[in-house]
Amino acid sequence: MKNRKLWTRPLSPDFKAHPPWFAVHGVSGYNRPMALTMPMAFSVLRTDRDSQARLGRLITPHGEIATPAFAPVGTQATVKALDPRDLRELGVELILANTYHLYLRPGAEVIAEMGGLHRFMGWEGPILTDSGGFQVFSLAANRTVTDEGVAFRSHLDGSLHVFTPEKVMRIQELLGADLIMCLDECAEPHDRAYNEQALARTHAWAEACRNAHRRPDQALFGIVQGGIFPDLRQQSAEFLVGLDFPGYAIGGLSVGETKEEMQAMLGITVPLLPANKPRYLMGVGAPEDILESVARGIDLFDCVLPTRLARNAALLTRQGRINIRNARFERDPAPVEEGCRCYCCRHFSRAYLRHLFKAEELLAYRLATIHNVHFMIALMQDIREAIAQDRFLSFKEQFLARYPIIPHEVRAANREKRGARRATPSGMSRAGRS
Amino acid sequence: MKNRKLWTRPLSPDFKAHPPWFAVHGVSGYNRPMALTMPMAFSVLRTDRDSQARLGRLITPHGEIATPAFAPVGTQATVKALDPRDLRELGVELILANTYHLYLRPGAEVIAEMGGLHRFMGWEGPILTDSGGFQVFSLAANRTVTDEGVAFRSHLDGSLHVFTPEKVMRIQELLGADLIMCLDECAEPHDRAYNEQALARTHAWAEACRNAHRRPDQALFGIVQGGIFPDLRQQSAEFLVGLDFPGYAIGGLSVGETKEEMQAMLGITVPLLPANKPRYLMGVGAPEDILESVARGIDLFDCVLPTRLARNAALLTRQGRINIRNARFERDPAPVEEGCRCYCCRHFSRAYLRHLFKAEELLAYRLATIHNVHFMIALMQDIREAIAQDRFLSFKEQFLARYPIIPHEVRAANREKRGARRATPSGMSRAGRS
Repeated sequence: MKNRKLWTRPLSPDFKAHPPWFAVHGVSGYNRPMALTMPMAFSVLRTDRDSQARLGRLITPHGEIATPAFAPVGTQATVKALDPRDLRELGVELILANTYHLYLRPGAEVIAEMGGLHRFMGWEGPILTDSGGFQVFSLAANRTVTDEGVAFRSHLDGSLHVFTPEKVMRIQELLGADLIMCLDECAEPHDRAYNEQALARTHAWAEACRNAHRRPDQALFGIVQGGIFPDLRQQSAEFLVGLDFPGYAIGGLSVGETKEEMQAMLGITVPLLPANKPRYLMGVGAPEDILESVARGIDLFDCVLPTRLARNAALLTRQGRINIRNARFERDPAPVEEGCRCYCCRHFSRAYLRHLFKAEELLAYRLATIHNVHFMIALMQDIREAIAQDRFLSFKEQFLARYPIIPHEVRAANREKRGARRATPSGMSRAGRS
Repeated sequence: MKNRKLWTRPLSPDFKAHPPWFAVHGVSGYNRPMALTMPMAFSVLRTDRDSQARLGRLITPHGEIATPAFAPVGTQATVKALDPRDLRELGVELILANTYHLYLRPGAEVIAEMGGLHRFMGWEGPILTDSGGFQVFSLAANRTVTDEGVAFRSHLDGSLHVFTPEKVMRIQELLGADLIMCLDECAEPHDRAYNEQALARTHAWAEACRNAHRRPDQALFGIVQGGIFPDLRQQSAEFLVGLDFPGYAIGGLSVGETKEEMQAMLGITVPLLPANKPRYLMGVGAPEDILESVARGIDLFDCVLPTRLARNAALLTRQGRINIRNARFERDPAPVEEGCRCYCCRHFSRAYLRHLFKAEELLAYRLATIHNVHFMIALMQDIREAIAQDRFLSFKEQFLARYPIIPHEVRAANREKRGARRATPSGMSRAGRS
């Protein structure tokens, strides 16, 4: 955020007379305070001696992001339980917001009218929006996919909607994030035939999104798909690189495949992507996955994991997760993690946090979320420092030696449980939804 | 809070060898950092020319309180949705915590072991605890009252408990609040026979509490009861003044009687209380009630109103309450209240707050609570300034001319609804309980 001022420009005198998106979309009250013509810039500052890990700097109209970076998820224009001041104090430099959710509620036009997503949610740092595709395929009902796009029913009220490449570009323009995504189709990773079909659509949609892209202050990323199939991943990376996007996302991972399969796909995909452009691994946030993926050259991550875990009383420590509801914490005066510098650990005991969770107090979710997001941000800081000092692989080894990894079967079962909750609206708890 | 340092003393060398409450209660880990022998001090700085309103200063071992003051309620050792830093930034100088709730969960011994309530909840300012009596009579099941005390079943798990004067004094000692209360019985305000019986017990219990009171750093208040019966109120005030408490609470009001009845009782009671001691009106927090009660000489107030309203999307403004869920706020870029200096109003629009409530986002409850508590704290600041400048009555008139008062019938219906929710455990929503 140091150079944020550099990117802040007063509106040009004729902006109000000819606001480009006002004219196109008929949005009134559109009054974005930032420069509208500064593109994203990315530079690799250093590549690790012993791995593909790299230290980088991503400059957006709303500030700089030191990479590798982790973006907490602000699904509905708020990182659950936190406010923008919390995010700044935690050192968060990028957040993700979900196009699907914001399109349905409060609506992209409402957000544009309120000055865009940054102003609406009071977060003046960089924002990334996904295309909405992932939620359509994971959350919405009655999907009908054609080459033109996807029709679906809202998970909120059953209303019918259509997402086309042009539509999701328009929605993301209205939201006004710094980094935006092409519409893609995330297929079941092991289904070859479905992945072939979905990949053809994903590529056609990427081209259509590229053609529909207008706001020069928004950097549009292409999304590599292809399930767990090396040739499809290769085909996808090569096709998208041909379209010359300013950045590349890798999608369709962490959706049911094993960690080995995920890393194998990265091993195939990343080397095909241009070295001078940022690489974003979508939806991945387990510390062990981040470390392995950084080693393969990934620059950006996002995941609901730290925030969702927090609301379920699962707190991240370098020794693994602890569930703070556990009876053994009833009279434990220690902080969640010794030596942690987060607001929660500096002021409150495990005993207090346990009490708040048992009593279902709102402060429980906030303090736990602060701790878990701090854990992720601190992990990324350590990763960057290790790369800068040419000791990334030894840092990774040391971290993984202490950090117990949740077995694949447990993760798969948890994913299934979440899916079941989503399928029945009554099962969607306030704390658990995102 | 300015003089807080003045009251901070290192533990005397022999404290660890002979900790007075450790010895008595067998509590280990008791390590209270504050002075243990400083009593409360109260001084009236100015009495209004045209009313009984007065400006005062209440000094406690954990800081000063400018009076008239409003204390937000932290039922379960947290003011719902806020953290201690929020409270400090809002200018809160006193909070109330509920002995009944904390006794049941996490338990007074647990809190004492964690260093007392201040340290447990990370709030180093003054705390007031009630005796638990009010919740026993409003929340617990299967009550049996005798002259010795009251037996009841926990609203959480049905477990059986007994509160006697000695027991509630011991619990409040373990919690360690600065201002503590005698056990009292809050009767239905219009029932003469019940009030006579209850008053006799309340007086006997007050005497027993006074005898059981030990910690010199805790100021024990007597509680005047007597329903809406002038002679009972007079009898109660005179009896308790005879016991020479350092402060007096007025209980059994705002529990179903009309505003006129409440003010009539204050008009009878307050003149009987010593002028040099603080007067605390329990459970009263509607702005119009505060103004009228300040005019009759009340110094302290507490109420769940601002925090409970906030969680129900009802926001306080000088023009009355607004419900932020209302469709008319969908595209409203204005803050909740123009000119308000709270964090919510300085950073967010009504449109955003409405969105958060519609989306059931946790941040909604936090921002709304910040605004409503700020409203109350700012109101008290204005009241104190008006008294200081001998214009309290005109300030009161001006305020009430703009602020619509909720009719008695609506308030009574709301109270009934809350009672019904409490009676059925499934109806106790997280947001609504306190």
